[in-house]
Amino acid sequence: MARLNHHFLKLSAGYLFPEIARRVASFEKECPDLAPRVIRCGIGDVTEPLPRAAVEAMRAAVDEMGARDTFRGYPPATGHDFVRHAIAEGDFRSRGCDISPDEIFLSDGSKPDASAILEILGDGIRVAVADPVYPVYVDTNVMAGHTGAALTGADAGRYAGILYLDTGAADGFVAAPPSAHADIAYLCFPNNPTGAVATRSQLQAWVDWAHRQDAILIFDAAYEAYITDPAIPHSIYEIPGAREVAIEFRSFSKVGGFTGVRAGYTVVPTSLLASSIDGSRHPLHALWSRRWATCSNGVSYPVQRGAEALYSYAGRAQCRALVEFYLENARLLSSSLREAGLRVFGGVNAPYVWATCPDGLTSWQAFDLILRELQVVVTPGSGFGRCGEGYFRVSAFNSRENVLEVGARLKTLARTSVASR
Amino acid sequence: MARLNHHFLKLSAGYLFPEIARRVASFEKECPDLAPRVIRCGIGDVTEPLPRAAVEAMRAAVDEMGARDTFRGYPPATGHDFVRHAIAEGDFRSRGCDISPDEIFLSDGSKPDASAILEILGDGIRVAVADPVYPVYVDTNVMAGHTGAALTGADAGRYAGILYLDTGAADGFVAAPPSAHADIAYLCFPNNPTGAVATRSQLQAWVDWAHRQDAILIFDAAYEAYITDPAIPHSIYEIPGAREVAIEFRSFSKVGGFTGVRAGYTVVPTSLLASSIDGSRHPLHALWSRRWATCSNGVSYPVQRGAEALYSYAGRAQCRALVEFYLENARLLSSSLREAGLRVFGGVNAPYVWATCPDGLTSWQAFDLILRELQVVVTPGSGFGRCGEGYFRVSAFNSRENVLEVGARLKTLARTSVASR
Repeated sequence: MARLNHHFLKLSAGYLFPEIARRVASFEKECPDLAPRVIRCGIGDVTEPLPRAAVEAMRAAVDEMGARDTFRGYPPATGHDFVRHAIAEGDFRSRGCDISPDEIFLSDGSKPDASAILEILGDGIRVAVADPVYPVYVDTNVMAGHTGAALTGADAGRYAGILYLDTGAADGFVAAPPSAHADIAYLCFPNNPTGAVATRSQLQAWVDWAHRQDAILIFDAAYEAYITDPAIPHSIYEIPGAREVAIEFRSFSKVGGFTGVRAGYTVVPTSLLASSIDGSRHPLHALWSRRWATCSNGVSYPVQRGAEALYSYAGRAQCRALVEFYLENARLLSSSLREAGLRVFGGVNAPYVWATCPDGLTSWQAFDLILRELQVVVTPGSGFGRCGEGYFRVSAFNSRENVLEVGARLKTLARTSVASR
Repeated sequence: MARLNHHFLKLSAGYLFPEIARRVASFEKECPDLAPRVIRCGIGDVTEPLPRAAVEAMRAAVDEMGARDTFRGYPPATGHDFVRHAIAEGDFRSRGCDISPDEIFLSDGSKPDASAILEILGDGIRVAVADPVYPVYVDTNVMAGHTGAALTGADAGRYAGILYLDTGAADGFVAAPPSAHADIAYLCFPNNPTGAVATRSQLQAWVDWAHRQDAILIFDAAYEAYITDPAIPHSIYEIPGAREVAIEFRSFSKVGGFTGVRAGYTVVPTSLLASSIDGSRHPLHALWSRRWATCSNGVSYPVQRGAEALYSYAGRAQCRALVEFYLENARLLSSSLREAGLRVFGGVNAPYVWATCPDGLTSWQAFDLILRELQVVVTPGSGFGRCGEGYFRVSAFNSRENVLEVGARLKTLARTSVASR
């Protein structure tokens, strides 16, 4: 009898964004006159056009594919050399990180990589995540069978077997390494959802912990381009010892507006070892290479040329302008939320603003209030874990016009909140 | 301690195509004067430019992404409606198959799908494959832990726990359903590597078997566009009862020359159920949908527009011309191999020609002979399984100029073979 993967059945039904969509649709149906006023600042999806350099490179690549002499078939499974070299130089060597092109694995994005990386890891590994957390880290581990059942009661939203590291305002939403053991630990800096960043010494503590625990760090740097503070590391490989314990995810989604183009990459250093069941140690790089050779035929050629173009002189300047645009949005939103009397986190080195709910409301209460009274869609912090309760996230990925309008509405939040009770 | 997936360590080191590349490189180094004469007919990679309709659609989509008003962010995880509708209509409803757009899951190719589909299936499933077999079906199952160790001796190249269905010239390289049980069975028609096709009644026998065994058929129809015989089914869903037991893989690689563009899709009907460990039955469609929502952000927007364009009036004609071009190549190659006195299979409903080795040579002996004497690279049949021993595969994916030259050289094979002894 063909068996399904029963771990899927453990997943909680109500995934955050579908529930948000349901509530927004319900409001729009209930109040059709207000529906046109609704502005979405929920999902972190970019709004501005692609950098010109990427458009031109992709258009030229499409034309190449249309002519016999320049046509290209199967790309290498792990990316063309031209883009792996551009990445190694542009993102790592230029920052003093010892990462070579053959340690770069081009993919169609960080979400697929977060799932695929578990294919090369063994059964029954213990996973540590911060709370609040990007839900994909948890859900992919549930699906891979690395957790127990979904918990209930005070632990609702959590899964047995995962080591949750509570964070909050007191630690600036940066988890310290636990005293307990874990086999892999997810670190996301700049953080989604809180916008927090980790200092060099905080990251060094994690690298040291991974060495002591023989653990692997999965460092998600999808938002590194938003770091404005020169003292904050962009890559885990800026930390001594990281090459032996860390895998890094990168994405072109937010730096180059590639959410619809689809490209990212994973770094697996050749010096990162893991153990087999007989205790022998092997480089994960070899397994990851084999995984790509067997399970993929690589990334679309025009997309690879688009990604490469982001590293050109013009491309870098255009990416910088794009990032600055969204960072200015984040500043405007942060300022409005502060004017509304809320405590604000993130938004300085990240495109996400994380704010306390007004008047002690829960995250979903604040979500409903902001939707119904201001017609603005935010993301309830509790959707990212119980430590997110009492907070909400506002995405800075929007047009300036929308951000100014949202900012003006959010400023009234304290007043609205009181009036609506 | 972070554990690796020890099943990876079972994989035989010598993957077919790297070994071919090694021997070709060695020959070219040894005989530099003959190196420029080498023509590759090994890997099945297309050579002709993309259909004009796809080029125009992709170029327009890139331009859309470069302008604020038409920019698109995250695509739906399972594909935009426009392409899922075009596929359901163009590939299924037009052939009388009851497949709806929401049963189509767009991906970046069949190889990724062949790997990903195992994520939704349970542990310890028994897998049946034909021999010869496309190696990806086997390797992905080894990696997922559904097999035992690699076997040795007479069974070298095989893995414990897999049910191999021997095929050969007597059955036209079409396996009949086994009497033994399996949980999933892979069927690839038109077949890679042999070019064999299955008749309606042969496929019906498989569907009936799957119902009896409560098994799932994984039907790989990547080469369906090459079917010239009107009696041969293009989709497993042309067979009554298939919606309850079959998953189908499709690819745009060979029909639209998309090997470098990267797009394909999987069909998972809503009526296909599988059992959980408690015996409860659930639609795999729900698990597969959740898999995509959690593990992917979908396929590149310009690629989706390119795929959609293959279904336009102009696109269909251009695909047809492309397929006819490669089929004519296959006819020319088949004819030359027959002139050389070899027995030839495939090449009529498929872009692969499968031929007996001359003079009782083994596959690798014939490979070396054809490389060294004729400077043509073919694929040794034994690389696809022990039932492929004594055969070699010639790919029709090449320029006409190369095919004519290869044909002229292959005609001399009987003579060459005798002379070289």
